[in-house]
Order: sequence, then C-alpha cells, then structure tokens
Amino acid sequence: MAQKLWEKNVKVDQQVEAFTVGKDREMDLYLAKYDVLGSMAHITMLESIGLLAKEELPVLLAELKNIYAIADKGQFVIEEGVEDVHSQVELMLTRKLGDMGKKIHSGRSRNDQVLVDLKLFTRAQIEEVVQLVSGLFDVLLSQSNRYKEVLLPGYTHLQIAMPSSFGLWFGAYAESLTDDLQLMQAAYKICNRNPLGSAAGYGSSFPLNRQLTTDLLGFDSLDYNVVYAQMGRGKMERTVAFALAGIAATLSKLAFDACMFNSQNFGFIKLPDQFTTGSSIMPHKKNPDVFELTRAKCNKIQALPQQITLISNNLPSGYFRDLQIIKEVFLPAFDELKDCLRMVTLMMQEVKVNETILTDDKYSLIFSVEEVNRLVLTGVPFRDAYKQVGLEIEAGRFTPQKAVSHTHEGSIGNLCNDHVSALMQQVIDGFSFSKIHEAEQTLLS
Amino acid sequence: MAQKLWEKNVKVDQQVEAFTVGKDREMDLYLAKYDVLGSMAHITMLESIGLLAKEELPVLLAELKNIYAIADKGQFVIEEGVEDVHSQVELMLTRKLGDMGKKIHSGRSRNDQVLVDLKLFTRAQIEEVVQLVSGLFDVLLSQSNRYKEVLLPGYTHLQIAMPSSFGLWFGAYAESLTDDLQLMQAAYKICNRNPLGSAAGYGSSFPLNRQLTTDLLGFDSLDYNVVYAQMGRGKMERTVAFALAGIAATLSKLAFDACMFNSQNFGFIKLPDQFTTGSSIMPHKKNPDVFELTRAKCNKIQALPQQITLISNNLPSGYFRDLQIIKEVFLPAFDELKDCLRMVTLMMQEVKVNETILTDDKYSLIFSVEEVNRLVLTGVPFRDAYKQVGLEIEAGRFTPQKAVSHTHEGSIGNLCNDHVSALMQQVIDGFSFSKIHEAEQTLLS
Amino acid sequence: MAQKLWEKNVKVDQQVEAFTVGKDREMDLYLAKYDVLGSMAHITMLESIGLLAKEELPVLLAELKNIYAIADKGQFVIEEGVEDVHSQVELMLTRKLGDMGKKIHSGRSRNDQVLVDLKLFTRAQIEEVVQLVSGLFDVLLSQSNRYKEVLLPGYTHLQIAMPSSFGLWFGAYAESLTDDLQLMQAAYKICNRNPLGSAAGYGSSFPLNRQLTTDLLGFDSLDYNVVYAQMGRGKMERTVAFALAGIAATLSKLAFDACMFNSQNFGFIKLPDQFTTGSSIMPHKKNPDVFELTRAKCNKIQALPQQITLISNNLPSGYFRDLQIIKEVFLPAFDELKDCLRMVTLMMQEVKVNETILTDDKYSLIFSVEEVNRLVLTGVPFRDAYKQVGLEIEAGRFTPQKAVSHTHEGSIGNLCNDHVSALMQQVIDGFSFSKIHEAEQTLLS
Amino acid sequence: MAQKLWEKNVKVDQQVEAFTVGKDREMDLYLAKYDVLGSMAHITMLESIGLLAKEELPVLLAELKNIYAIADKGQFVIEEGVEDVHSQVELMLTRKLGDMGKKIHSGRSRNDQVLVDLKLFTRAQIEEVVQLVSGLFDVLLSQSNRYKEVLLPGYTHLQIAMPSSFGLWFGAYAESLTDDLQLMQAAYKICNRNPLGSAAGYGSSFPLNRQLTTDLLGFDSLDYNVVYAQMGRGKMERTVAFALAGIAATLSKLAFDACMFNSQNFGFIKLPDQFTTGSSIMPHKKNPDVFELTRAKCNKIQALPQQITLISNNLPSGYFRDLQIIKEVFLPAFDELKDCLRMVTLMMQEVKVNETILTDDKYSLIFSVEEVNRLVLTGVPFRDAYKQVGLEIEAGRFTPQKAVSHTHEGSIGNLCNDHVSALMQQVIDGFSFSKIHEAEQTLLS
Repeated sequence: MAQKLWEKNVKVDQQVEAFTVGKDREMDLYLAKYDVLGSMAHITMLESIGLLAKEELPVLLAELKNIYAIADKGQFVIEEGVEDVHSQVELMLTRKLGDMGKKIHSGRSRNDQVLVDLKLFTRAQIEEVVQLVSGLFDVLLSQSNRYKEVLLPGYTHLQIAMPSSFGLWFGAYAESLTDDLQLMQAAYKICNRNPLGSAAGYGSSFPLNRQLTTDLLGFDSLDYNVVYAQMGRGKMERTVAFALAGIAATLSKLAFDACMFNSQNFGFIKLPDQFTTGSSIMPHKKNPDVFELTRAKCNKIQALPQQITLISNNLPSGYFRDLQIIKEVFLPAFDELKDCLRMVTLMMQEVKVNETILTDDKYSLIFSVEEVNRLVLTGVPFRDAYKQVGLEIEAGRFTPQKAVSHTHEGSIGNLCNDHVSALMQQVIDGFSFSKIHEAEQTLLS
Repeated sequence: MAQKLWEKNVKVDQQVEAFTVGKDREMDLYLAKYDVLGSMAHITMLESIGLLAKEELPVLLAELKNIYAIADKGQFVIEEGVEDVHSQVELMLTRKLGDMGKKIHSGRSRNDQVLVDLKLFTRAQIEEVVQLVSGLFDVLLSQSNRYKEVLLPGYTHLQIAMPSSFGLWFGAYAESLTDDLQLMQAAYKICNRNPLGSAAGYGSSFPLNRQLTTDLLGFDSLDYNVVYAQMGRGKMERTVAFALAGIAATLSKLAFDACMFNSQNFGFIKLPDQFTTGSSIMPHKKNPDVFELTRAKCNKIQALPQQITLISNNLPSGYFRDLQIIKEVFLPAFDELKDCLRMVTLMMQEVKVNETILTDDKYSLIFSVEEVNRLVLTGVPFRDAYKQVGLEIEAGRFTPQKAVSHTHEGSIGNLCNDHVSALMQQVIDGFSFSKIHEAEQTLLS
Repeated sequence: MAQKLWEKNVKVDQQVEAFTVGKDREMDLYLAKYDVLGSMAHITMLESIGLLAKEELPVLLAELKNIYAIADKGQFVIEEGVEDVHSQVELMLTRKLGDMGKKIHSGRSRNDQVLVDLKLFTRAQIEEVVQLVSGLFDVLLSQSNRYKEVLLPGYTHLQIAMPSSFGLWFGAYAESLTDDLQLMQAAYKICNRNPLGSAAGYGSSFPLNRQLTTDLLGFDSLDYNVVYAQMGRGKMERTVAFALAGIAATLSKLAFDACMFNSQNFGFIKLPDQFTTGSSIMPHKKNPDVFELTRAKCNKIQALPQQITLISNNLPSGYFRDLQIIKEVFLPAFDELKDCLRMVTLMMQEVKVNETILTDDKYSLIFSVEEVNRLVLTGVPFRDAYKQVGLEIEAGRFTPQKAVSHTHEGSIGNLCNDHVSALMQQVIDGFSFSKIHEAEQTLLS
Repeated sequence: MAQKLWEKNVKVDQQVEAFTVGKDREMDLYLAKYDVLGSMAHITMLESIGLLAKEELPVLLAELKNIYAIADKGQFVIEEGVEDVHSQVELMLTRKLGDMGKKIHSGRSRNDQVLVDLKLFTRAQIEEVVQLVSGLFDVLLSQSNRYKEVLLPGYTHLQIAMPSSFGLWFGAYAESLTDDLQLMQAAYKICNRNPLGSAAGYGSSFPLNRQLTTDLLGFDSLDYNVVYAQMGRGKMERTVAFALAGIAATLSKLAFDACMFNSQNFGFIKLPDQFTTGSSIMPHKKNPDVFELTRAKCNKIQALPQQITLISNNLPSGYFRDLQIIKEVFLPAFDELKDCLRMVTLMMQEVKVNETILTDDKYSLIFSVEEVNRLVLTGVPFRDAYKQVGLEIEAGRFTPQKAVSHTHEGSIGNLCNDHVSALMQQVIDGFSFSKIHEAEQTLLS
C-alpha cells in the first residue's frame, strides 16, 4: 500500500481511514483528467522558475499526457489502497520515472491541487451544460415558430382565462433559458479564475509565477488573494449550484406543464407511445414518466445550493475537511442535469400538440377579455364594458368571436422569437470557451 | 430480457428506458429482503381469502424464504434487463416454480409493494440507528460521570464566561440524544403502519384482509384510508428525515465543539494520534478530520428533509413517478448517519481531556459570577455586587477563588445523570421493536 | 431611558444599539404573558430557598398578576428606550414597588428567562394548533362520511386511473392530520421540559430548586443538564418547526387538490361565490385565492425548519446572540399556520362537491381494473385478463359497468373512519394540556 | 370602502377578505414609488397609441408626479379598506381628477403592474446594495493595505498552520465581494427587463408599444414573450435572492471570523467598547453582538432562495395568487442586508488588530513550512526536508526563524490589491445604473 503523504510514525486506525477516505476515490475519478492538466501547467511553471530541471520537464509532460489520454478514455483507475487522484497520478509517474515523478508536488499543497481540479472540471461541465441548453433552446424556438398559429387556453389561478398559443408556450421556455444562461455565465466567470499557487490557503515561499499557470490553463484571471482562493472552495460550488438550480427550475416547470397538459383532463399535448409507460394493473394508462422524473430530478437539483450551504456555512476562513463532502453532492449533479436536458430536448422534438383544443365549448370564455376590449375600442368605458360582459356570462348569454388579433411585441401575433434568439446568442458569446480550448490544446499538444 | 409488467404492443424507447429506470436497480437492493417479507405476508393473506390455492402457499413461502436468505447474506442481484426488485423476485420464483410464481402479484400494485418495502426497510433502519444512539449515549454518560469533577471554561458569545465541567459537556450531548430519540419515535410510529392493500392508491375490488397482513408484519396498525396510504409516500420519508436530521444536528454540534476544543487555541481535548491525520506540507499538524467529516456528513443529512420536501411538494394527491427519486436520497442516508454514530462513539471513548485547563490565567475571570453571588449571599444587593466586581476586573484587581459549589439539579455538582439515563430508557421502551422481531421471525420460521 | 442591565461606563454606539435590539421589542410582545408566569414561579421558588423575604413574595406576586392581566388583554407595551420584555416587566415592578421589583432577577440570567418564556409560549401555541387541527379533522371526517357514496375519478401520474370517492378524499386528509399530530406531540414533549435555573447555560451557585419551578409551571420534567438546557435553544424551535411543517404540508397538498379540482378542467368541487375572487380584466373568473394563499403560506412554513437550521447550525455549544434572530421567524409562524387552519376548516365546511362527475365519458376507463379483476375472479389468469381488457380499450370497444364493490379496510365501501377517529383521539390524549392549565391557574389564582 | 376591481354582485366573506389581503397593504408600501413610475410610462405610451387623449396625459402625469413625491418622502399611505397600492393610486387620482383617473388602468392587468413594480423596486434596491458593498470593499482594501505587514497565524482544520497576515485577511473578504457582485450583476440583468404589456400573462389585444415603455423606464430590453414575462415572477426574486445570499455568505463568514478572533482564546482583533455589549451576570464580558447578529441575519438571508423556491416551485405556468406571499419574504430582505452591510463597514473601520500576536510561542510552528522550503531550496529533497522538520518538531527541537518572504502574486508580500480593485471597478461598471437614473429623471421632469 502506498504511503500517505502526511504519514508520520503512527499508523492511522483502519476504521478512521475508511471513514475519512469515504467516497473520495469514487469522486476523484471525475477529476482525473483535470488533475493531470493542472500538473502539466504547474510543472511547466516550476521549470520556468528553476524549481524543475530543464531536461525533466519534457519527460514528465510526456508521461502526464499518457495519463491524460487514459483518463480521457475513461480508463483511469484509482488503485486499492491509494487514497485519492493526486496520489494515484504520482504513483503512476513514479512507477515509470522513479523519484522524478515526485517533483510535480513541489510548491503545491493538495488543497490548491483540488481547488484547481474542481475549477477545471466545473468549467468543462458548464460548457457541456451550455451546449445542451442551447440545443434545447433551438428545439423550443423551432416548435414555437411551427405552432405559432395554434391557440391554447391560457390559465390564471388554474382557471380558464385568456387565449394563449403553443407559439407562446414553447417560446416562453426558450426565453427562460436565456436568463438561466445569464446566471450561469456569472457562475462561470467566478469559476474561471486560477486558485493554483495558493498552497494550503496562505501561499508559498517559493517564487511561483501564478500568472503563467493562469495563462497556460486559459483562466480569465487569478483568484488573487491566496486566502480568498481557498475561501472560494464551497463558494464556487454553491454559486454554480445556484445556476444549475436556475436551469433545473425551468425544466421542472416545463415538465409540470407537460404532465398536466398530457392528462386526459387537458389533452393539450400527447407523447408518442414509445415515450410513455403503462401500469401493472391499469391497461389504459400512458404515463408521462419521463416528465415526472425530470421534474423530480430537477427539484432535487434545486436543493443542491442549500446542501452546499449547510455543509460550508458557519465555518471560519481556512481549509476544513468538511469541504470534501461537497464533492459528493456537487460532482454528480452535472450528469443528472445533462440527462434531463437531453431527455427534455428529445421530448420537445417529439411531442404532438392538439391543434383543435379550442373547439371545446368550455374554452369559450377565454374570449371574454377580447370582447371587453372590443367594446372599449368602440368607446364604451372599460368598467361598463367589463360589467356588461360579466353579466352576459353569468346569464349564459355570452357568445365569443373566436378570433385573436394580438399585435404587440411578445404577444400571440408577434412572438419576437428573433429577438429572443439574438439575446441567447449574445449570452452564449459571453462565455470564453474557445480561449479555454486553445489553452488546453496547447498544453496537450 | 424480461418483459415489463405494463408493456403493451409498443417498445419503449431505449434512452427513455435508461432514464426512467435511473438508479432504481441500485436502490432496490436496499429493499430486497423487505420485498420478500411483504410478499410472504401478502400471499399468506391471499390464501386465507381463497385467492391462492392451499397447496401453493407453502411452496411459494419456501422459495421466498430461500430468496430472503440470499438477500440477508447480501447476495441478492438484480439482473441485467430486469427493472426493479419486484420483477427480479418474480423472475426468480417463476424460474423455479413456473407460472405459480406470478401469483404473488395478485391483488397488489407495484405502488403498494414499494410502499410496504419502504416501511419495512425504514423501521429496521430506525432500530439500528436507535441502538447506535443508545451506545453513544452510554459512552457519553460514562465519560460525564468519569470527568464530573474536571472543570472547563464555559463560554457565551465565544467569550470566556463561567465555570463549566467536562461532566456537563459530555452529559449535555447525552441528554440531547434522548430528545432526538423522542422525535425519532414519532417518526417510527408514523412509519410502522401498514399500507399494503392500498393497491395503486384507491384500493382493490378483491376482498383483501388488510388487518391480517398488518398482524403478520408486526405493524402497529393500518394506514387505514387507501388514498392516505399512498399519500404517505414522501411524507413518511420526510418525517423520518426530520428525525435523522435531529440526531445529525446533535452530532454536528458535538463535532464542532470537538474540532474547536482540539485546536491549539483551546487545547481542552486531544485525540490519540491514530485518529488524526497530518498535512502534506505542514509536518506538525494533527488534524481532527474525523470530526470535520462527521460535521459535514451530518450537515448534509440536515439538508435531507428539504430535498424530500422539494421533490414531493406541490403535487396533488395520487401517485407520481417523482417519488422514485426520493429513494436516491433517502435510502443511503441511514448508512451515512450510522457511520457517523459509530465513529463518534469511538472518538468519545478514546478522547483525552485536559484536566488542568483552568490553571491558565486567562480563565480566571470565569469565577467572577461566583464572586458576585458570594457578595449577594453576604447581603450586598445584586446590582452593587455586580458593579463592584466589574470595576475590580476593569482595574485588574480581581483575584478569583477557584472553587465552585453548584448544588442545584443539573449543575456541576449535581449532574442528574441517573435521571437522564432513566429518561432515555423510557424513550427507548416506547419503540415496539420486539413485536416486530417476533412477527418477522414467525413469518420466516 | 432605562439603563441596560449589563451597561458599564461606556455608552453603546446608537447605531449598534438599534441594530442589536432589532425586532426584539416587537417579538417580545409574544412572550410577555409567559415572562410574567416564569417570574411568578421563579420568585415563589426564591422565597422557598430563602433568597426572597416571606413578606415580599405576595406583594410581588400580586403586582405580577396585574401585569399578566394587562398582557392577557393584549395591552402590554414595551416602552420607548426599553430593550426587551424582561426589562419592561422589571420597570413596571420598580415603578410600583421600588427596589423590591429588582429582586425577581436574582438567581437568573436573561438567557434562562428567554428560554423559559419561549417554552411556555410555544406549548400554549401548540395547544391552539392542536385544537384547530382537531376541528379541521372533525369537518373532514364528517364530509367523508357524508359523501362516502359519491365517486370521484382517482388519478395516478395525473392520468385517469381508478374509481375513488369523496369519502376517501376527505378522509385521507383527516388521517394525514393524525400523523401530523403524532409528530407534533414529540415536539411538544421536547418543548415541555423546564430550562429555568440554567442561568447563562452553566448553572448557578445559588441553591435553586429547579424541581419546584418545574412543578409550578406544569412542565413534564426538567431539562436536567444546564448546558443542554441552553443547547436546547434553536433545537426546540427547529423541532417544533418540523412539526408545524408537517401540518403545513398536509394543508398545502389539500389546497393543491382543491385548486385543481376547482378548475373548469376538473370541476369536482365548487366554492361558494363569497369565498372566491374575480379578475380585473376577466369577468368570468372565480378564483380559489384562499387555497392558493393557503398553499403558499404553508409552503413558506415548510421552509421554516431550514431557516432555523441555517441560523443555529455550526455553532459550538454555549449561548450566541445569533439565537435572537430565530424569534423573528419562529414566533409569527404559529399565527400564520393557525390562520390557514381556520380558513381551510371554513372552506372544507362550505365546499360543494359535484355528485355526477362520473357521467362524463372520459372517466369510463377508470372501471377497467374492476373489469380485469372481475375476469380474474371468474378464473381467467391475471395477465390474460389484463391483456384482454387492454386490447379492448385500444380498440375502443371497452364498455364499463359503473359499479364499484370495494369491501376491504380503508377502501371505498369500508372507510374505517371510526378507527381513524379513535386514532386521533388517542394521539390528542397523549398531550398533557390539562396538567398545564391546572399549574398555570394555580399560579395565577 | 372602495369597491374591488373584480367585484361582481356577491360580497366576499370578510374573513376570506382579511386572509387574502394578508400583509399586502404593508408590503405594497415598498412598491408605491415604483407603481407610480410604471403608470407614468404606461399612460405616456397609451397616449402615443391613441388610447388616451392628448390633453389628458399631462394632467394625469402631473398628478402622478405629486403622488410620487409623497411616496418619495415616505408619506404614502394605503387607506383602510383599500386593498393594494394600485387601488390606492387610482383612488388618489380619481379624487382629484374624477373618472379620468381610471384610465391609467387601460391595457393593463394588476399582474403586469405588480411585475413591473417589483422589477423597478428591485433594481433600485440592487443599486443601493452595490453601493454599500462597494463602500465595504473600500474599507476592507484600505485595512488590507494598512496592515499588510502584520502577520497573523493561518489555520487549516482550525489547527495552527502557516503564516498569514491581516493584509491577506482583510483583502480576502474584499476580493470575495467582487465575485458576489459578479453574481449580483447577472441577477440585475435578469431583473432589468420590461414585463409591462404582458397583461395577465397572455398579452393584450390593444396595440401596445412595449418598446416605448422599455425605453421610458430605462430597461435593458423587454421580457419579450408575454408568457415568459409572467413566468419571470418568482424566478426574478429567486435569482436576486441567490445573489443576496452570496453577499450574505461573505458577511456571515467574516462575522464568524470576527467573533472567533475577538475571543480571548485568539485575541487577534478587538472591538472598541462602544460596539460591544455586556452580560447581566458576568461583569467582565465584552460581547461581539454586532457580529453575531450579522451572522444570524445573513444566515437567515441565505435561506431566502429556498423559501422562494418552495413557494413558487411545482406550479404550472400562468399566474397564481401564491406569488403574493413571496413579497413578504423578498421585499424586506434588502433592508436587512443593507443594515448588515452598514454595520460591518462601520466595524471594519473601527476594529483594532493585535500587532504582536506572533510573539506567543504557540504560533512558532507556523514557520515549519518555511523551514522545509528553505531546506528544499538548499537542495534537500522535499520528502527528506519534510521528515527532518517533522522529527524536530516531535522532539521539541524546532526553533523557527520568524521571517516570511512570500513574493508571488496574492501572497503576503504581494497582495495584488490594485488588481482586485480594478476587478471590482470593472464589475461595477457592468451595471447600467446611470441609464436608469436618466430614464427616471426624464420621466419625472
């Protein structure tokens, strides 16, 4: 068994060891690729300040690239008895290169190593999330345009209220995603700053060049203050969790609508049979499980910020082992949200809308506001028009004209989807993913 | 691949299937034993109302006992392509017994099957938690008695305030656990009611005998109303999660104290070296990681009720697939809390207390209230005594008499640990674990 | 302006003073009656141990009774410049009785004074909540009995599923309340223990008789350990908040059902016009605002445990001023929940049910399970019966027999409301309210 | 009593009315100024599309300006029997101008009126928060520069670890605020989009010019889709609450440090006496109540996003009265955070630091890493150096050289405060407050 970095003369109790390692070996697999990238940047910098010999750098870099390739293929393994990803990488290096392998640890603490790993991992995950959101956005907007003429009853208080349209409905969720990505971008900017060089949270007496690792890794800037770099742990995760929760809230609401609209009491949309499930005792059921599970998973994600807050709150500044537990809830959340995004995108592509809902008489009343407005435009004061139509309805004498002519921005007849699309593009352009790609490719080339 | 119970003529999309199964196959392993127990009670009842042939019952029971034994040994496996524990058990039965194996499904829905599984699992977990809490309680009380004479500075506002003692400190956490179990008992009572027979939440036209399964499984009573039986899903988990959170809060606070008392700035307690970890760059560190991780894990558990609330809230009555996701956060929480309980018990046994803290001059002021009270007992009005001592302190002229003679109930000289112990016993007696054991053993014998 | 108890020679900065007093003067009005009660018990005990002169006790008690009467009429006022309820009571006493008034403070700290106030207030509020829950329970059960024959479509996945009934629907929420009170009872028991005598959390050198104040105030027992008595602050509130959240969750779900059932797309229930509101632009709307606001208020209450947790978590043992802020969220929560309980009780009394829902053809399919079961009872294997009915439905050839004969416990034909009622009575009997009343009346008589 | 807009022939039950109005009259006072502003923009637009007579516009605008002035002075009152701010403004107008006053309601619903009020209020509050954060930032950075040479022990695991400095400590919180404002800016951008014209969430048949009101009110753009404009309610508040929680988390952590550093067991900082409070029974106490209350208030604010989520989650699209309750928790939160910001700014200005902490022998070990690094720089391999120093410490033979020479970016000797300052300025410049001021002043001039 590999010796622990910090081990002194006393053996750690085995139960204690199992408890403290916890799920770390499982969680650290998410970080393997990024741990290697961070080490590549770090040793390149070490060489530049004379803490690594010129001839050692290419040897170490070559071997780290091999390990990166393994991790990239999903084949990185943390061996039995090795406590975390950092130790595993070092072990792999020393097996090949002997003592030279240990030099990647100089001028670093595991604290700033995990800080940088988390940030590199997170920004990559954010990019994937943004791409999936963008894909869903396109589907929603395309459906909005396709069904812009198909009316839908609009509800307030779950009471039948006014005419809406499928164009509005699909489009509303598309626009919601633009705001969600606005929030994500703030989280991304907070994430994309370099903590490397903060050591255990108080910096180092080595003459590190933190700007160099910042550039090598494509970060926007440094987390300057080393105490703040450490303080950012937990905070970065919580902030990104806010942004994930924002997207999750949009998906959850969409899923709620979809479940309801798919009920026989509404019948506004229909899912193809291969996307529904049945019942073991009720042969007629076609259940929208995908939307129910999306809703539940997204509601679970909405609890994530609070989980992280509870774990990290009311601790003084400085590192605490408590922060390790955040990984358990934070790292897997991306896959959960990405799954939901993929599934909702598929469903929104395949969903069939009911183009003749409004022929049902119970929706006649939604045209009452139109009628009031029509009277107003002929000169009747609003209150009188309102009262007149109200009394007609109560007396059962109201007959609607089922035509809608809404012309203002964002209404049925004028969805402004092009503006929404431009807004989305503008938000997406605000991320600096290409700069990251270039930096990482340069490092790996 | 086994056919799904509800499958009709259309194949479910594969992505959809993977998404909807989710972590169910992993989660259902927690439930396997209990699913078998529920089936044993169910078919015994079916036979009693003539829905199962007399000769079939013992054959099915015998085979279910075999499966129970497998699950009890931790060897139950949900095979590739089988969607959940219920299908796996049926599959194992039909392999051995042919079509007869399918009969365990009569008069039931998967909904009430999972309801009863969850309750049987949860009450068993509650028992384990109660036992571990009771063990920790004993250790704490024993340490309280052992160190009842050792003084400790007591703080308010984290300002050195008044004399406390290790007897008080250990004993306080013991007493806290009695209240925690009081709450757990309410959760247990809510859990230990039988939902079986509620079918999909609206009962069945079969003449089920729900009282019989209630007795066979050792439940305290039925969840009578079948709509309520279904509505209890999510609610039971949330309520138990409240109770788990209560225990977790006590452990978290104890861990916080322990981390602080272990700091060099306090030095009140010391952990044996084999229970601490070191630092990769700071050779003198002896970190109380166990307490930090306990704190973090327990704080994570304190977020559990909110997670469950978010998943189950604002849904109308009736089953929704959303509830499946609760399993992912609820089922593993017991192991997490039990680990913490074991670890804290071990630590509390091994911790060394500093018996000479109060020789440090900075704690002299804690005797000022004693001095005020002494003056009061000699007839000086409280305000005057208070002012006099305050001025002495400000002038640096205060010299304490380091003797404490607290005699009232619950104070340093009169801990009342025997009362606390009796209270704990009374709470534990309020659980009906032995009734459950007898019922389960009868069923399995 | 009254001098602060702890004031020394330096004046506190005015901004700081405003900030630290915060909402305390407003919040403490909730506690006034109970602060007086606590003082009456305390001085009775002081006299018994010789710390108050025999002749002073009746004088002080008489004046405290006057103050109690003022508070009981809602006329207690905390004057400008007085910082909290404790100081105001002392001020009122000293105005009448001179220095004798100050003696109520001997042997106490504001810490244990507020602890006991909070517990006395909370247990009184719990009693009111329990009475209101009991009243709502009666209405629900009475409606359940009244409408036990009226069928209602039952849903799973919001898909029309199986026959349910209004009897089941009303009854389910009644039974839910029994479990909610079970949880409340645990919270009550944790609350109803006496913290008085814990002083600032480390006890007192005075020979207090804590058992005497326990008896005088009708507490079930002491919070024995004085460190635990202080540690109970925040914990008691959080635990009671769990129990309030449990009731709130039941009301929220009922409100959700009611809003949905009141929608024109369901039309299962109807609220009398005077209980609905309209729209400023849609004359036909009859909105169930009461249920929407009930749902929202109850969902707000469901966040209460988490609020308290966030405020009190990750603090070491010992008093912190942080705990003051819990009052702001905890004290008003009772009135909010009680308002909701009153409103839902009124609505459930007045709601009209639609007795002919099932004549609508879209609900025909709910009888398909009945049909499957009928075939099974004639000897057709379940799978075959299920398949046969399923194919009939898909082909549009399914004609239901709209009769339901469910006979088992808790189903449509056998609601077991008497058992549920007995269960509720048993839970209510477990509270010890009458003991409290007797103690308080004795103290005040 | 004023008639309600939606009132028909049936009187609303009085209890119901009291319940539904709730705290709205109190809450709406926060919105009065902004309601008037929104109306001014709205009627200017109405006139431009011919729905208001040319001569009526200046009359109405003049009177609205009067009402604005009243509200601006804090003298706006919602009269007894008037249900909300919108009705009160209309009442004031009609008193002066007769029926003309009613015309401000044309082409609007109360729904989009409250939407726009909330956004105008919120963006103004955000500006105040940003200014206060910026003020605190300046104080922190100035203290960081002032004390950049004063060393402080740095902790990990609350174990004495490595040298830190007051320069680092103050600066870390300053830098934290830059990230907090980054998040706030995203919330601001989501807030600063115009919902006006969405009516009840489905637009209007009037030919509204929404771009015009967008420009008049200084919004960055429209909430285009009217369904999304309505869906933004709750979402906007939740997102801003995330951002408030971010700032609150920074203040809470700072307050935690301050409470701890102010304890006699640390003694790193000292608050002037006029900023502390004492104890009613312990004359020597000088309690940091301000920091404790800041911590608690900020932790309460950290629960705000979850409160809003619980209220607004799992509701389908479309308006629900539930959203009204969000006002109760959201609107007062700004004042609470602003109070904390002011108080922390004052405290950070006045706090005294202990310039000679490191003379205490217990901090000698913090120089051990320096020693290890020194050996490394002389050529000793890291592991050997680490082991050598570790053994010296264990043997009590370690004598530190108490000099620190950290030179890299963000470390003790090179704080990079100018970079942090530039970053803050860049973030603040990203808000568009001046554009808002200009628009509002134009409207009011």
